Amino acid sequence: MRPSGRAVDSLRSIVLEPGYSKHAEGSCMARFGDTHVLCTASIEERVPGWMRGGGKGWVTAEYGMLPRSTHTRTDREAARGRQSGRTQEIQRLIGRSLRSVTDLKKIGEIQIRLDCDVIQADGGTRTAAITGSWVALYQALARFEKLGLGALPPLTDHVAAVSCGLCDGVAVLDLDYAEDSTAQADANFVLTGTGGIVEIQGTAETSPFAQAQFMELLALAQKGITELVALQKAALASLR
Amino acid sequence: MRPSGRAVDSLRSIVLEPGYSKHAEGSCMARFGDTHVLCTASIEERVPGWMRGGGKGWVTAEYGMLPRSTHTRTDREAARGRQSGRTQEIQRLIGRSLRSVTDLKKIGEIQIRLDCDVIQADGGTRTAAITGSWVALYQALARFEKLGLGALPPLTDHVAAVSCGLCDGVAVLDLDYAEDSTAQADANFVLTGTGGIVEIQGTAETSPFAQAQFMELLALAQKGITELVALQKAALASLR
Amino acid sequence: MRPSGRAVDSLRSIVLEPGYSKHAEGSCMARFGDTHVLCTASIEERVPGWMRGGGKGWVTAEYGMLPRSTHTRTDREAARGRQSGRTQEIQRLIGRSLRSVTDLKKIGEIQIRLDCDVIQADGGTRTAAITGSWVALYQALARFEKLGLGALPPLTDHVAAVSCGLCDGVAVLDLDYAEDSTAQADANFVLTGTGGIVEIQGTAETSPFAQAQFMELLALAQKGITELVALQKAALASLR
Amino acid sequence: MRPSGRAVDSLRSIVLEPGYSKHAEGSCMARFGDTHVLCTASIEERVPGWMRGGGKGWVTAEYGMLPRSTHTRTDREAARGRQSGRTQEIQRLIGRSLRSVTDLKKIGEIQIRLDCDVIQADGGTRTAAITGSWVALYQALARFEKLGLGALPPLTDHVAAVSCGLCDGVAVLDLDYAEDSTAQADANFVLTGTGGIVEIQGTAETSPFAQAQFMELLALAQKGITELVALQKAALASLR
Amino acid sequence: MRPSGRAVDSLRSIVLEPGYSKHAEGSCMARFGDTHVLCTASIEERVPGWMRGGGKGWVTAEYGMLPRSTHTRTDREAARGRQSGRTQEIQRLIGRSLRSVTDLKKIGEIQIRLDCDVIQADGGTRTAAITGSWVALYQALARFEKLGLGALPPLTDHVAAVSCGLCDGVAVLDLDYAEDSTAQADANFVLTGTGGIVEIQGTAETSPFAQAQFMELLALAQKGITELVALQKAALASLR
Amino acid sequence: MRPSGRAVDSLRSIVLEPGYSKHAEGSCMARFGDTHVLCTASIEERVPGWMRGGGKGWVTAEYGMLPRSTHTRTDREAARGRQSGRTQEIQRLIGRSLRSVTDLKKIGEIQIRLDCDVIQADGGTRTAAITGSWVALYQALARFEKLGLGALPPLTDHVAAVSCGLCDGVAVLDLDYAEDSTAQADANFVLTGTGGIVEIQGTAETSPFAQAQFMELLALAQKGITELVALQKAALASLR
Repeated sequence: MRPSGRAVDSLRSIVLEPGYSKHAEGSCMARFGDTHVLCTASIEERVPGWMRGGGKGWVTAEYGMLPRSTHTRTDREAARGRQSGRTQEIQRLIGRSLRSVTDLKKIGEIQIRLDCDVIQADGGTRTAAITGSWVALYQALARFEKLGLGALPPLTDHVAAVSCGLCDGVAVLDLDYAEDSTAQADANFVLTGTGGIVEIQGTAETSPFAQAQFMELLALAQKGITELVALQKAALASLR
Repeated sequence: MRPSGRAVDSLRSIVLEPGYSKHAEGSCMARFGDTHVLCTASIEERVPGWMRGGGKGWVTAEYGMLPRSTHTRTDREAARGRQSGRTQEIQRLIGRSLRSVTDLKKIGEIQIRLDCDVIQADGGTRTAAITGSWVALYQALARFEKLGLGALPPLTDHVAAVSCGLCDGVAVLDLDYAEDSTAQADANFVLTGTGGIVEIQGTAETSPFAQAQFMELLALAQKGITELVALQKAALASLR
Repeated sequence: MRPSGRAVDSLRSIVLEPGYSKHAEGSCMARFGDTHVLCTASIEERVPGWMRGGGKGWVTAEYGMLPRSTHTRTDREAARGRQSGRTQEIQRLIGRSLRSVTDLKKIGEIQIRLDCDVIQADGGTRTAAITGSWVALYQALARFEKLGLGALPPLTDHVAAVSCGLCDGVAVLDLDYAEDSTAQADANFVLTGTGGIVEIQGTAETSPFAQAQFMELLALAQKGITELVALQKAALASLR
Repeated sequence: MRPSGRAVDSLRSIVLEPGYSKHAEGSCMARFGDTHVLCTASIEERVPGWMRGGGKGWVTAEYGMLPRSTHTRTDREAARGRQSGRTQEIQRLIGRSLRSVTDLKKIGEIQIRLDCDVIQADGGTRTAAITGSWVALYQALARFEKLGLGALPPLTDHVAAVSCGLCDGVAVLDLDYAEDSTAQADANFVLTGTGGIVEIQGTAETSPFAQAQFMELLALAQKGITELVALQKAALASLR
Repeated sequence: MRPSGRAVDSLRSIVLEPGYSKHAEGSCMARFGDTHVLCTASIEERVPGWMRGGGKGWVTAEYGMLPRSTHTRTDREAARGRQSGRTQEIQRLIGRSLRSVTDLKKIGEIQIRLDCDVIQADGGTRTAAITGSWVALYQALARFEKLGLGALPPLTDHVAAVSCGLCDGVAVLDLDYAEDSTAQADANFVLTGTGGIVEIQGTAETSPFAQAQFMELLALAQKGITELVALQKAALASLR
Repeated sequence: MRPSGRAVDSLRSIVLEPGYSKHAEGSCMARFGDTHVLCTASIEERVPGWMRGGGKGWVTAEYGMLPRSTHTRTDREAARGRQSGRTQEIQRLIGRSLRSVTDLKKIGEIQIRLDCDVIQADGGTRTAAITGSWVALYQALARFEKLGLGALPPLTDHVAAVSCGLCDGVAVLDLDYAEDSTAQADANFVLTGTGGIVEIQGTAETSPFAQAQFMELLALAQKGITELVALQKAALASLR
C-alpha cells in the first residue's frame, strides 16, 4: 500500500496549466499532486557567445526552489551566493532534455531560456519541470509560427519525465516526497512521445539493485510518460 | 486619466489569500492587481548569533523575484551569485516594517523569517510584500497561541504599505508599472493600523518636488492603508 | 539637552575642504563634527554599456567605511567579498541625489564616479557624503568648463543632505552617533538649493511616529540645508 | 572499426597504481589509456556538522581537472571562483558510488575525503575516478584494520565504473575522447563486484535511443566491470 | 638627478602623526611625501580559531587603497568582490613584519588588527604602512601597560621599512611614483631598530641585476631605516 | 647534520622530465626530492585586453596544490571559491620570473600560460615550479621555431630558483619540508643562467638575521642555480 493510496502504476493528479504567466512568451504551471513548478520560456535574441555566427539556436534552463517550498525552510541560493550542486545538476538535465526535441537549426540564432521555479515541493520537482517546460516551450515557439516561421513549431517530438522507485521492494510510479525519502532506489526517466530514451538517471539509495528491477522501473515509466504526453496534448488544445 | 482608468485615490483590485502554502507556518499570496507576491513565514528555533541569550526574538525578511516575473527576463540572482542592491534594500525595508509591530520580547528566542517572492510583477512589489507578510506573520504567530502563549499573537498593530506618486503632475494612489516607470516622483509609505508612520521613502525621479506635493501623497497613502488594513482583517477572518 | 550641548536646530561644526585629493578631478573632505568623509569625483570617458550611444552622461557613487572609522572595528568589505546591504543602499542614494541636479545631456557621454570614503564616523555619514560630493562634482565639472564646455558647470542646482530625528520626544537637527543610536525615529532629507525635495527616508526606530512630528523634522531639515548650501558656496569660492 | 582499433567490448589498457601518494592514507593513480586520475583518500576525525553525534561515518568526494589535462586549456576553477555544474555533478556521483559499498556505521564518526584529480584527460575521467577511488578507499580503511578495527575493512563490496556508448550505431565499451565527443548516446554505469547496479546515467547526445540499445550498453558494462574488479583485486594484492 | 631633486640617499619628507583616529586603540597617519597611509591598531579579545587555548596573541594586518588614492581611479575591491593578489601580498608582508618584533606570548590571547588604508598614493605605500603601523601598534599596546601589563609594551624592537631601487643605473633611496614606475629594479627592505633583516623583497623590473648593485641598495636602506626609526621615536614622544 | 643527511650545499635529487603532458605545447614534471610539480605551458592566440594592439606577447602563471599533495589535506581552493594569498603571491612570482627572460616583443601577440600544479609537496614548491616552467616554456616556444619564427626560441637566458635558509644557525641549500618548517630564516632566489638576480625574497621566521648571514644564503643559491641550469640544459637535450 502506498502512503497516498495510489496503485503502483498510478500517477498523482496532474494539472498542466499553460499561459499561467502574464509576461512570458510561454509558460505552464505544472502540478504533480502537491508539487507545483512554474515553468516559463523567455525568448532572447542573442545566443551565447560561443554559438554566435553558427546559425543555430539554443535552449537552456535554470531551476530554483522558493525557500519555503520545502517542508522546512531551505536557504535562498541568491543569499548564499551560489547555486548548489543539486540545482546545477537539475537545470543541466532540464536543458538537455528540451534540446533533445528542439530543431536548433530551424529556430535560428535565438535563445530560449526555461525557468523552472518550484513554488511548492512534494517530490518529483525535476520531472514536473521537464514535463511543464515542454508546454511552455511549445507556446513560446508557437509565437514564432505566427511570425511565419512555418506550419509547426520546430519541436521534433514531445518530451516528458517521471520518476519511479523501489519502495518496500515494490516498483512504483511517480514518487511523492513520502516515498522518495525512503525508497531503496529511484530513477528519473525522460522519454519522448514516441518512446525514445532521452535520459535515464538511476540511483541506489540504500542498496544496489538488480537489472530485472531496473526493467520494471523502465516499464512503469513508459506507461506514465504515455499519460503525461496525453496531458501535454490536452494542455496545448486549451491554448488555442 | 490613469492608464488603468482608476480614480486617483483608488487602489488596484487587492486579494490577500492566507494559507496559500502547504508547508509554511504562515503564508499569504498578496495580489495587487497583476502584482503577485507569495509571502511565507517560517519559524526557526534559533535567533541569529548576536542575539543569543538576550531573551528576545527576531523577525527578518528576504525578497526575490522569479526571473520571468518581469516584462523582460531578469537575471536570476542565485546564478549571478549576489543579490542586487535593490533586493537588499527591499528586504531590509520589509524586515524593519514587520519588526515595528512585533513584540520581540514576547515571542522569546525564536526567529521568524519572511520570504517574499514575486511571482508576477506589475509595480509595487515591496508594498504588496509588506502587506501580505503581515498576514503570514499573524498566521505563524497564531500557531503560538495554540501552544498556550497567550490570548493574542504578539503583534502590537497592523502594518501595511502602499506607494503613491506624481504622474503628469497629479498625485495618485498605488502605482502600477505603467505609472511607476514614468512618474515624476514616487514614495512608499509604511503605516500602522492606527496611522503611525513606520517608514517613508520618497524619491524624485525626474525633478525635485515640493512639500505640498509630498503632503498630498501622504494623504492618499493614509486613505489606501486604511483600506488595506480592512482587507488584512477580512483575510484573518477567513483563516478561522 | 542634547549630548553635544547643541541647540535642537544647530548643525555640528561643518567644514567642507575642497581639493583635498592630489589626484582626483574633484574632491572634498566633508567634516560634520567628528564624521569625516572624503569625497572624490573621477571623470571616466566611458559610460556604462547600457547607456552607450545615447548621448547622455552618468553620475554614480560608491561608498565605503575604513574598518576602524567606527567605534569598534567593522569587517573590511573587500575581505568579506561583498558589500553589505547598508553600503549598497547608501551608495544608491548618493548617486540618485547627485544625478538629480546634473544635466546628464549636457555632460555628454562621460561618467563621473563619486567615491565617498568614511575616514571617521560619528553619525550622519551619508548626509556628509552627499553634501561633500556636490562640491567634488562641481570641481570636476569646472574642469570641463576650462575645456570650453560652456560658461557654467552643468549642475542645475545645489544638493545637500542632513538627518533629523526624534530624541527623547524632541525633534533635533543633524544627529551625531550618540543621538542616532538612541533616537525614536530618524529621517534623512536630501534637498536642493531652492528647497525642492530629492529624497526623504524616514524610519521609526523604536515606535511609529505621527505626521505632525514628521513635519517638524522636515522644517528642521530645511533650515539645516540652507546653512549647508551656504557652506558649499563658500567652499567653491575658496577653489577659485 | 573504433578509432583506437579496439574491439567493441574491449577496455582500454587499464593500470591501477595504489600507494602513488607519499602523504595520503590511501591513494591510487588510475590510468584508463591516456586518461590519468590521481585518487587520494584522506581520513579526517570529524564528520560534517549535520552528522555529529550520530555514530556514523561519512565518505565524500571532490573532483578537479588540471587546467591543461585537456586538449585545449580549461580555466582553473579556483581562479574562476566556482566549481562548474559538471564538476559538482561528477563529485556527487563519486561520493554516492563509494558510500554505496561502505558500512558507514562500522567506520564510526570519521570522514573519508576522496580527491580525484585529473592529471590527463582522454574521456571517461569519472569512471576512472570511481574505479581508482575504491582502491584508495580500501587502502585507507586497511590502516584502520591495523588499529584493531576488525578483520576486514568495512567495505561491503567492490564498486567500479565504466562508460558505454553508441558510436556509428554500434554499442561500444569504455569510450575514449574521440568516441565520447561524437557518440549518439552514452551512459555511465556504476556496478558492484557482485553485479548490483549503483548508478546508471544514460544520455542521448544526438537523438533518443531505444530500450534494446540501452540493454546492449548495460551488457557491455557488466563485462567491463567484471574486468575492472579483477584489476582492483590485483592492485590490492600489490599493496601487501 | 632624481625627479624630485632629492639626493640619492635622501628620504622624502616624512611625517608620522600618531593618535590620528578618534576611535582606534592606536593609530598613525604616515606621510612619505605625497604617499599618505592611515594605520590603525584595533585590539580584539579573541585570537583566530586555530590559536585558541595556546596562550599566545596574534598580530595581523589588512591593506586597502581608496579608489581615487591613485593617479587614475582603481576599482574598489569591495565592489569587485575580491582582494587582488597585490593587496594580499602586501597585507601578509605587513603582518609578518610587525609580528617579528612583537612578543606574542606576553600579550596573551588577544589579537591586534592593523588596518593600513592608503588615502593618497605616490609610491612606497607598503613601506609607509609598515613604518606607521609600528607606531599604531605601540600606542595600542601602551594602553595595556596602563592596565598593569608591565613596564613596557611587549615590542622587542622597532621595525620600519623603505624601498630602494636602481634608476638610470644609480641606486636611490625611497622611490616615489615617478621613480618606481621606471626603475630597472627595486627592493623593499624591512629592518629592525638594531639593523636586523626582517624581510627583503627584491625584483628586477626591466633586467636582472648584479650582487654588487643589491649591496648598494641594502646600504641605502640601512641608512634610511636609521632615520625612520628616529622619527618613530619622536612620534612616540609626542604621544606622552 | 641535515635531516636528509645532505651536505649543507647539496641540492636534493632533481629530475626534470620534459614532455610529460600529452596535450600541452610544453611541459615538465619537476621533481626536487619528494616535491613534484607538473608545469605546463599553453599557447593562446590572444593577449589580455589591456595589451591588445601593442604588438607584444605575455607570459603568465597559475599555481595550485592538489588537496592531498600536503602532509595533511588542504582545502581545495576551487571549493572554497577563492585562491589564497599565498597562491596568488606564488603565481605572481612565477610569472614575473619567466617574463624576465622572455623577449615579449619577439613572440608577438600571443600569451603563454604556465600552470604549475603541485602533485606532491615536500618544501620548495615555488622553486621547483620556476625551474620546471622554464623547461616547459622553452619546449612551447620551440614549436614556434618550427613554424619559422627564427633560429632560437626568444628566451634571453635560463632562469631557475632555489631556496636557502638558516637551520640551527647554519646556512643550507634547498630546504625540504622538515627544514623549511623549522628554519630561523629562509629566502627564495631566482637567478638567470648568467648569475643575474631576478628576485630575492628573504624572510626572518623566528628572529631577524644579519647581513653576513644573508650573504651566505646568496652564495649557496648561486651554487645551486648553476647546477639547476645544467640540469635544464640536459633536459632540453633529451627533448631533441
